[in-house]
Amino acid sequence: MHRTYSLRSSRAPTNSQLQSPPPPTSTTKSGSLFGKSSLGNTFRKNAAGNFGPDLAKKLSQFVKMEKNVMRSIELVARERREVGKQLSLWGEDNDDDVSDVTDKLGVLIYEIGELEDQFIDKYDQYRLTLKSIRNIEASVQPSRERKQKITDEIAKLKYKEPNSPKIPVLEQELVRAEAESLVAEAQLSNITREKLKASFSYQFDAMRELAEKYALIAGYGKALLELLDDSPVTPGETRPAYDGYEASKQIIVDAENALGNWTLDSAAIKPTLSMRTTTGDVYSSDRQRIDDDDGDVYANDQELLHSAQGNNYSSQGNTANNNWPNEHSEQHDVPTNANGNGTANQHRPVEVV
Amino acid sequence: MHRTYSLRSSRAPTNSQLQSPPPPTSTTKSGSLFGKSSLGNTFRKNAAGNFGPDLAKKLSQFVKMEKNVMRSIELVARERREVGKQLSLWGEDNDDDVSDVTDKLGVLIYEIGELEDQFIDKYDQYRLTLKSIRNIEASVQPSRERKQKITDEIAKLKYKEPNSPKIPVLEQELVRAEAESLVAEAQLSNITREKLKASFSYQFDAMRELAEKYALIAGYGKALLELLDDSPVTPGETRPAYDGYEASKQIIVDAENALGNWTLDSAAIKPTLSMRTTTGDVYSSDRQRIDDDDGDVYANDQELLHSAQGNNYSSQGNTANNNWPNEHSEQHDVPTNANGNGTANQHRPVEVV
Repeated sequence: MHRTYSLRSSRAPTNSQLQSPPPPTSTTKSGSLFGKSSLGNTFRKNAAGNFGPDLAKKLSQFVKMEKNVMRSIELVARERREVGKQLSLWGEDNDDDVSDVTDKLGVLIYEIGELEDQFIDKYDQYRLTLKSIRNIEASVQPSRERKQKITDEIAKLKYKEPNSPKIPVLEQELVRAEAESLVAEAQLSNITREKLKASFSYQFDAMRELAEKYALIAGYGKALLELLDDSPVTPGETRPAYDGYEASKQIIVDAENALGNWTLDSAAIKPTLSMRTTTGDVYSSDRQRIDDDDGDVYANDQELLHSAQGNNYSSQGNTANNNWPNEHSEQHDVPTNANGNGTANQHRPVEVV
Repeated sequence: MHRTYSLRSSRAPTNSQLQSPPPPTSTTKSGSLFGKSSLGNTFRKNAAGNFGPDLAKKLSQFVKMEKNVMRSIELVARERREVGKQLSLWGEDNDDDVSDVTDKLGVLIYEIGELEDQFIDKYDQYRLTLKSIRNIEASVQPSRERKQKITDEIAKLKYKEPNSPKIPVLEQELVRAEAESLVAEAQLSNITREKLKASFSYQFDAMRELAEKYALIAGYGKALLELLDDSPVTPGETRPAYDGYEASKQIIVDAENALGNWTLDSAAIKPTLSMRTTTGDVYSSDRQRIDDDDGDVYANDQELLHSAQGNNYSSQGNTANNNWPNEHSEQHDVPTNANGNGTANQHRPVEVV
């Protein structure tokens, strides 16, 4: 909020941004075919389920619906900034105390819009991470269908021509298809869980940041209101001169510092859990990077996944290769450090079948 | 969040609702001429400044812009609930752990939509309280104009017919107009400050509630994620049976309790102020009702205002009467207890001119 006195000027990164670098700008922020209206939203939601393999339909629709949420938050953020400016504009014509307080309230409200804007970029990362589940779902379907098709063919042949030489060929083909399918299903199972956890973990962290910053702004806003001279005057009485400029400026500086210094580690609101079912602390205060055996730091969870899979599948021979469905490789992963606790237990030694 | 296991069933009031009763449903929630699209928003904003007295134009526009913010939050809330349902729907086809966790995540996300919905109703109260400033602004303008008109007329007469018998009549009229104007200006000054403080105080309290509840939900959401079995499996390996049903249910119960028990007094996030400029504690933990001399509790700040004015203006005689501009009496005040600290110092003894 480096705009203590005006709504202009550029900004220094906050502590929370230093802790986890901000994601790229949300994809919804560029112009879109359907503009910003909810018309596009409705179309998008309804169209989403109509294409692609059955397996991925529900998730496709979910991902599109999240895009609608994002666009609506974007609308709120934009209108919030406009409201902040208009409040300041209205207050200008008023007495000194009202003018100063509304101007500073405008700064805080504008800041809410900015925070919502940053949240949108993170929400987009969450959404794009979910897309990788959709992609693996979509790529698993052909493998299931192929297995089913060969099984059906064998059954048909065995009924029509029980001695057909094609049967052993098809049976060999089925073994290969089953192996491929086993790998695909394992990938689906692993990626679904990993990405689900990573994406929501990221969303919840982003939400926690936005939420605590909202609450901070609300607090500083209330402090500003105290500067209003709201003791009633009688007709003809003039109010004492306003002397709150220093105080209001200081409140904005304090707010700026509080927002700038906020990090996930300093989060004040923690859930009270009556059962402790997991070893990992949900709100661990030491969010450490995870080192692998070489002492390297994993760049992101995608790399982590590849590495884990390398361990699992390399002994499977050629059938269980590491070929990813690259036609679906739109892998937008959450930035480094996004899911500090989430990925740690992927490092437990896994058995090789 | 009385929907531990499903998205249905009705809800018990939360502690925060018991502390300050929820406001009526937002006016934007009924059908509107321009529907829910942003088309209406743009029109509303641009049209707002074009009618009514100059004095009230900027605030009129501000109030309309806040309606846009509200409608956009409404959109977010509605889409949030849809997203919650769709997440649960997608998860249903998955393995037990994914299915259970996504279902519970869906409950939490749906709840976010519900909280945003409650916030909208409060935001509407904030906005309607601002309207009373707009109304007094609009009603003060004619009184200013009348005074100016009489002054001009006297000046003109004094130049053209210095001995006109109309002059003393007009001068008496001017005295009355000035008295009326003095009262109007005092009302404007008092109401602007009182309503500005009450409305924003109410908005910030509502925001703080929403924010802290967001943060709580994010925390419980992260706890749910820990129940996902995200250790990678190898092809053909089956995952151990999911045993998290009890835990996930308990997390939702915990979340329900945390949200239900939350009150402003229990707010965890407080601003750090480096200057203490006001006597009132911005975040006082003992938000008391204000008793008047009779021991009655003020029903709302409107009543408080009337009472205060009675003290000030009654000695002014007939000129300074208590007649409010009733044609502008669309006084929607924030509900009882909304601004606990804000109004206390209106009780200081005021001098009578």
